[in-house]
Amino acid sequence: MTLALDSTAQDLLFREAHTAHTFADEPVSEEQMRAVHELVKYAPTAFNQCPLRVTLVRSPESRERLVKHMSEGNRPKTSTAPLTAILSVDLHFHERLPELLPHAPKLKDTFFSEAETREVHGTFNATLQAGYFILGIRAAGLAAGPMSGFDRDGVDKEFFGDGKQKTLLVVNIGKPGEKAYRPRTPRLTFEEAFTTV
Amino acid sequence: MTLALDSTAQDLLFREAHTAHTFADEPVSEEQMRAVHELVKYAPTAFNQCPLRVTLVRSPESRERLVKHMSEGNRPKTSTAPLTAILSVDLHFHERLPELLPHAPKLKDTFFSEAETREVHGTFNATLQAGYFILGIRAAGLAAGPMSGFDRDGVDKEFFGDGKQKTLLVVNIGKPGEKAYRPRTPRLTFEEAFTTV
Repeated sequence: MTLALDSTAQDLLFREAHTAHTFADEPVSEEQMRAVHELVKYAPTAFNQCPLRVTLVRSPESRERLVKHMSEGNRPKTSTAPLTAILSVDLHFHERLPELLPHAPKLKDTFFSEAETREVHGTFNATLQAGYFILGIRAAGLAAGPMSGFDRDGVDKEFFGDGKQKTLLVVNIGKPGEKAYRPRTPRLTFEEAFTTV
Repeated sequence: MTLALDSTAQDLLFREAHTAHTFADEPVSEEQMRAVHELVKYAPTAFNQCPLRVTLVRSPESRERLVKHMSEGNRPKTSTAPLTAILSVDLHFHERLPELLPHAPKLKDTFFSEAETREVHGTFNATLQAGYFILGIRAAGLAAGPMSGFDRDGVDKEFFGDGKQKTLLVVNIGKPGEKAYRPRTPRLTFEEAFTTV
């Protein structure tokens, strides 16, 4: 009653949703991924920088190139998921700022002209977008399997050899398979996570 | 049709939702924030580390202590929002891991025993949670006004003098006020943000 979001949507995105570790043999279409993007693209980033880039790994060759950089425990599921997405930050996101933030076109050549500033702000905002993306996958009725266990430099060199992007997270995507979910782990209570001052 | 999430929920969380820059004079209750936590707490973090901490700034004294560290453009709205939350990463999140991840209690004293490892992984995962939190505010029928324009060291010293937490984002929270929203800025197309390999 306290929330405006209906309970079906609460369940779909949060309460009943789990990280998937196995996937059903059912393809994930480009149309579905397009619908996810058309939804989550609206969620906010600072200065509307939109620095997240998504590499959809579809071909068997590309999948092999990715799997070899995953940690051992993540290899079987990354080999068999219908679709795997590499989420990365575009370190040259500032080049798009004049279109994305038409009322402040100068930011590109002032605040964001420094590579280090771009890396700090871009990484932070692309990570916020990674959070939106995971919920967007669930909004599409799919299960997400986000993984941080991989050789980051290896994936960067393999897929972003020009150095313009850095990998943040690898996410398996699909309908859950058999025994896809582990038991729910505990969460912090409100009192443990929140403080009022 | 492609999404499982109903269109009312799509609008509430993404399509119709905007960053708010002014707020109505209507309080945000602890009950509402508790409901947000009870919803978004389920969204995933690596190893269930749950490193995000939220400091709800309610008293006039605390608000003053925060506002002085905000960038000038962010001061009026932070002074007048019904509630402001400081989102931070708990750099000692590993102390809770034995409870949060009962099947891998040793991580606390192995992988996460290094402060630098904790800062990298904690910051990344708390930032994912910051994304979930912003959507959780919207799920409560409230508007969020996330801000990255503030003196980070200043806020850290002011509120986390023990050095155990680092501020990630400051978020104003409330019902939108008059002229709360700026016009929607453009977003990247699917083709610009996604690549298939």
